[in-house]
Amino acid sequence: MSVTAAKGFTAAGIAAGIKENGSPDLALVVNNGPRLAAAGVFTSNRVKAAPVLWSEQVLKGGLVSAVVLNSGGANACTGPQGFQDTHATAEKAAEVLGHNAGEVAVCSTGLIGVRLPMDKLLPGVEQAAKALSAHGGEKAAIAIKTTDTVHKTAVAESGGGWVVGGMAKGAGMLAPGLATMLVVLTTDADVDAATLDAVLREATRTTFDRIDSDGCMSTNDTVLLLASGASEVVPDEAEFAEAVRTVCADLARQLIGDAEGASKDIRIEVVGAATEDDAVEVGRSIARNNLLKCAVHGEDPNWGRVLSAIGTTSAAFEPDRLNVAINGVWVCRNGSVGEDRELVDMRYREVRITADLAAGDASAVIWTNDLTADYVHENSAYSS
Amino acid sequence: MSVTAAKGFTAAGIAAGIKENGSPDLALVVNNGPRLAAAGVFTSNRVKAAPVLWSEQVLKGGLVSAVVLNSGGANACTGPQGFQDTHATAEKAAEVLGHNAGEVAVCSTGLIGVRLPMDKLLPGVEQAAKALSAHGGEKAAIAIKTTDTVHKTAVAESGGGWVVGGMAKGAGMLAPGLATMLVVLTTDADVDAATLDAVLREATRTTFDRIDSDGCMSTNDTVLLLASGASEVVPDEAEFAEAVRTVCADLARQLIGDAEGASKDIRIEVVGAATEDDAVEVGRSIARNNLLKCAVHGEDPNWGRVLSAIGTTSAAFEPDRLNVAINGVWVCRNGSVGEDRELVDMRYREVRITADLAAGDASAVIWTNDLTADYVHENSAYSS
Repeated sequence: MSVTAAKGFTAAGIAAGIKENGSPDLALVVNNGPRLAAAGVFTSNRVKAAPVLWSEQVLKGGLVSAVVLNSGGANACTGPQGFQDTHATAEKAAEVLGHNAGEVAVCSTGLIGVRLPMDKLLPGVEQAAKALSAHGGEKAAIAIKTTDTVHKTAVAESGGGWVVGGMAKGAGMLAPGLATMLVVLTTDADVDAATLDAVLREATRTTFDRIDSDGCMSTNDTVLLLASGASEVVPDEAEFAEAVRTVCADLARQLIGDAEGASKDIRIEVVGAATEDDAVEVGRSIARNNLLKCAVHGEDPNWGRVLSAIGTTSAAFEPDRLNVAINGVWVCRNGSVGEDRELVDMRYREVRITADLAAGDASAVIWTNDLTADYVHENSAYSS
Repeated sequence: MSVTAAKGFTAAGIAAGIKENGSPDLALVVNNGPRLAAAGVFTSNRVKAAPVLWSEQVLKGGLVSAVVLNSGGANACTGPQGFQDTHATAEKAAEVLGHNAGEVAVCSTGLIGVRLPMDKLLPGVEQAAKALSAHGGEKAAIAIKTTDTVHKTAVAESGGGWVVGGMAKGAGMLAPGLATMLVVLTTDADVDAATLDAVLREATRTTFDRIDSDGCMSTNDTVLLLASGASEVVPDEAEFAEAVRTVCADLARQLIGDAEGASKDIRIEVVGAATEDDAVEVGRSIARNNLLKCAVHGEDPNWGRVLSAIGTTSAAFEPDRLNVAINGVWVCRNGSVGEDRELVDMRYREVRITADLAAGDASAVIWTNDLTADYVHENSAYSS
């Protein structure tokens, strides 16, 4: 159901010819109101793609009537011409939809440093506008795929007559930045822009911001949340926040499950931390340790690599009080050898690493993937 | 010539049986004086192996009469028993050499989290002591190899009657910490411990501390510099510092050239930085970008990945003033498309990336490797 699960939204996904192989590459999501409230979070990379620079400005107004998304090109590091291309895309969508260009967000994903083929993209926007449908969410989710093997959608239905739905793409370059991918969430709940902003920031902080596939931060990451108000229900804020968080967590888990070349999804839970910041710092350090990620790929419960990753952080801990469990077996106790590593069963795709800092009560969960020859292959041949 | 290039040193490398395959695994380096001055730098990982904890204490006295080094086991994360094993090793060396155990440094390298086979190691120390020779430097360098495919030695001869020589091991887990591997440097120049310390810290800061093979910081990294004074020459300090820096740079380059699974050595030069710290921060961020390292492996001049790595730093720069050259071709100018990427020839093992921040006059060079399927294979099967 994707972005059209919520009333008040139409969407489309078409093949505009941006991708040379003819796959779908252009999506359009339109908020038909009555409300046009919106919020967005963007990559914290200082090298931002043109569509990010554009959409950040659009979101300052708190109003988004439509989102144009293309795969097949990131429009990043494309200079003033690239920004003009994004601007022209928003103008084109505004023209065919009868909207204001200042309320049209634009998202792009694909190779960095290449101009978009505007002679294909602009006619594609017209074509997508004609294809808009209240059942178009699935096609939109398909059109934003790059190296994704499957499209990603999620929906949370409240008991109160409103829903939150969403779509996501992102297979490589997943790392906290914020955001970490292209995501569009929609709701027919009646919520103002300020509330959407607060809810979205808190939801992404503990979901998209805690998946770290390969430590690389994109130039294009964007998460948008649009509210149509079409249900005419003003939701309880806590209930609404939980629905948005649920959809974000669902999509984030799908992103990790489809990360480039991955054969294992690794859930890193840091417990016993003095603070949540400490727990997140340690979790990310473990998630980015290439040697550990290779070991997990080889189904090797190499807890020494967990300890050496923890040791690079500034978190509060004593080395001789650290405990590490892999899939529930405490292979490291008090910084030294614990239970027999032969007891660890790593055959399944999901691997759980628990790091106990023995320094407090705070905790955090970070998701990552193993490092595989397929990842190397996919990313050494990507642009050629 | 290795650690025995300098007069006053003897060394040995033998197979003690620590490695199950019977390869050499124990080295001994002895300073026969007349001077016993020494300095050391150690990993900044907070999870330190037992031999690091021991040797840090030894070095506080500024006197080292002998160094025992073993491969086949890191003696890290081995608890109080592991520390006792290191202590017993130093005591054994002191006993057979007639030295003071408090002046015997110990270095270990290999798998983390496994006790050393002391029933093999201690007789090995006796055996090594009997094999000590003024020509033993080569054998010592061979005995400290782990996944290294070649042993690494270097010598700088001064015109003034003294030399600096050294050996190094380290193929994975190379990252600035300090140190980043096991290195023993020797000199017959007559230099006091305080001068050795200052010279060694400055030399490692711009050599070993600026190679970053895989972003992983070891628990065992140790660099020792021992002076025998046997040349009876007190060197000019600047000349001596340059000789030590030369040997460190030579060994560092050899380490990168033999990094696990690597097919490309990548020299990242950051220029136009506001400060040297900025240049180093940017260089390391580029060096740790897995996507870029995969691209280099595929001989793909993917400068967008360089920009997205720069964008994650806090260095002073404007995104639209960044320039990037790959092997001398300025493929990115002013944050956007520059010269034709087809002009970049990446066939050779050494790849040069130049990042110009256009923000000042400071610069730094960081070395790294590409990320390959061989790296994944080697590190997913290492402990099993």
